[in-house]
Amino acid sequence: MKEIKIILWGFGAMGKSMAENIMCKKGLKIVAVLDKDEKILHRDIGDILNISSPSGILVRNDFNNVIRNIDADIVILAIDSYIEKVIEYIELILENKKNCITLAEEMIYPYTTNFSISSKIHRLAKENNVTILGTGINPGFVLDSMIVFMSSVCNNITRINASRINDLSPYGLTVLREQGVGLSQEEFGKGILNGNIVGHIGFKQSIEFISNAIGLEVDDFIEFKEPIITNTYRETKFINIQPGMVAGCLHSAYGLKSGNPVIVLEHPQQICPESETIDTGDYISIEGDPNIHLNINPELPGGVGSAAITVNLIPQVIACKSGLKTMLDMKLPHGVQGNFAELLKKYRVGDLYD
Amino acid sequence: MKEIKIILWGFGAMGKSMAENIMCKKGLKIVAVLDKDEKILHRDIGDILNISSPSGILVRNDFNNVIRNIDADIVILAIDSYIEKVIEYIELILENKKNCITLAEEMIYPYTTNFSISSKIHRLAKENNVTILGTGINPGFVLDSMIVFMSSVCNNITRINASRINDLSPYGLTVLREQGVGLSQEEFGKGILNGNIVGHIGFKQSIEFISNAIGLEVDDFIEFKEPIITNTYRETKFINIQPGMVAGCLHSAYGLKSGNPVIVLEHPQQICPESETIDTGDYISIEGDPNIHLNINPELPGGVGSAAITVNLIPQVIACKSGLKTMLDMKLPHGVQGNFAELLKKYRVGDLYD
Repeated sequence: MKEIKIILWGFGAMGKSMAENIMCKKGLKIVAVLDKDEKILHRDIGDILNISSPSGILVRNDFNNVIRNIDADIVILAIDSYIEKVIEYIELILENKKNCITLAEEMIYPYTTNFSISSKIHRLAKENNVTILGTGINPGFVLDSMIVFMSSVCNNITRINASRINDLSPYGLTVLREQGVGLSQEEFGKGILNGNIVGHIGFKQSIEFISNAIGLEVDDFIEFKEPIITNTYRETKFINIQPGMVAGCLHSAYGLKSGNPVIVLEHPQQICPESETIDTGDYISIEGDPNIHLNINPELPGGVGSAAITVNLIPQVIACKSGLKTMLDMKLPHGVQGNFAELLKKYRVGDLYD
Repeated sequence: MKEIKIILWGFGAMGKSMAENIMCKKGLKIVAVLDKDEKILHRDIGDILNISSPSGILVRNDFNNVIRNIDADIVILAIDSYIEKVIEYIELILENKKNCITLAEEMIYPYTTNFSISSKIHRLAKENNVTILGTGINPGFVLDSMIVFMSSVCNNITRINASRINDLSPYGLTVLREQGVGLSQEEFGKGILNGNIVGHIGFKQSIEFISNAIGLEVDDFIEFKEPIITNTYRETKFINIQPGMVAGCLHSAYGLKSGNPVIVLEHPQQICPESETIDTGDYISIEGDPNIHLNINPELPGGVGSAAITVNLIPQVIACKSGLKTMLDMKLPHGVQGNFAELLKKYRVGDLYD
């Protein structure tokens, strides 16, 4: 194999970011791009990405035809967050003997939340000798895999607190609305009730992931979405808000054991956090033996990070044992500076001395 | 299997720390302890560890007999830092069909530095269907595995800088002498020349590990050991030093590409760093897309962390494919709060749905 052949399914912000990555890499090749957005349909992705030369790859929406008939090693599925919304597409991909990485947040650890669907997907992947993995920066890395990895140097773990504080300022109105930015406190309450304010997707899965990996038992799960009310005037390219209005959503989740918090994850998302001297960052605190206090400042960037880890895991997902996998099944994930197809060959041979 | 049977080979500070961990865990059992130190020979390890009830395990030094005749799943080898010093014992362990984790620093990534020995160990492990892994907090985690893991969210990596700043104050004179603490600057220079000042062991291996994992090419390696001269009076339980004397050793290592530093690792080790307002910590900085700045304050503790990761990896090392393995071959390492023998069973079955 000279190049790993990739179908990108979903050409929104994430799909575009991955396409840009892939086009700079050795040993990776995009063979088709799927998206239903009329505005980009039939356009060359080089044109959409503002690359001078055309790529020869036009955006298509005949997904049945593409998945069935185009030869590819893997499909990257970045179209929705929820299992129910992506399950039929995942089935189509696996039935056509293609490996899959999805950025659907709920797929990061579907075993406990969606047992029967997970079981079905796993069987289907096994039958067709392919692998499906859910990943991303969060869920997928910061508030689950990284916590689990750090726990490996602990002799004992009694409680985990972690927080991802980010800045929504670069994002447009679609994202801002999902976090309630610009609403009054009353409107925010209504938005929570009618489901318009989404907060973060995947907390339950991240907590199950951590709990099952470490064996840190939890018997209950609760989550809260609270408005972040600004004390200062805040302004971005897309919105401006007055003191007293909602600057974002503090979404927090608790894994409880006998009523006591054991795993506590927080993800406050807001515009202009610096206006109230809040440092963005990823923060992990493990109470145990030893205690661990880890900071990443600023936070790992969501878009770039999700695109990177997805692309970096392509060779491993193709090479590994078939089935529905999670980040716990991956060998130490790592960046890839060299040729991806060569790396896949190396993975398949086993190691140097086999 | 109700309990995983463990032989601890080496009952110094590290062996004792692991024994304490193991004795608190479910599903792990120490079946023999080996050490050649006359002061602890034939003594009950419960007595040595100041545990009220005797364990029934006496320290022995008949290693040939123990490794050949005592039934065990794994041997933890913590007796020396250098491959040449442990190779004959590793061979004995593997020939007797026992898995092995070693804390010998050079074993963290022996492929490039000791090709023929690595090749021989790998064949021997394969022939006997067992696994050998080198691990520890450093090398093994902070300045190699953790860097590689963080690189997985990078689309591009151009340079890595990492530093582990620790405090030698708790350590006795043996450790302090190896870092030159209490010497004059002139004596330090002599100590480097005659090999009495050791600094950190494993830098070359850590740099090869990172370089090969990520594909971040290096073509040369240099390292420096410099004295840390104190400006203040510093005092511990074991030593006191005047301004102008050596408080420790700044050991740094450079992986170069065409003369330019690509991977830079530093490990300044000294007593009382706080006396000159130096914060101990683990610091990782990745230059690329994105840039990553990670801090752990204080640093992950060396003794506790090394013992923990070794014990936590026992089930995975027993379950995994045979051969000479590195941390790169491990699935996402994690702490273990539950029963280790149950976890091994789960690993062996594959996952829930297989």
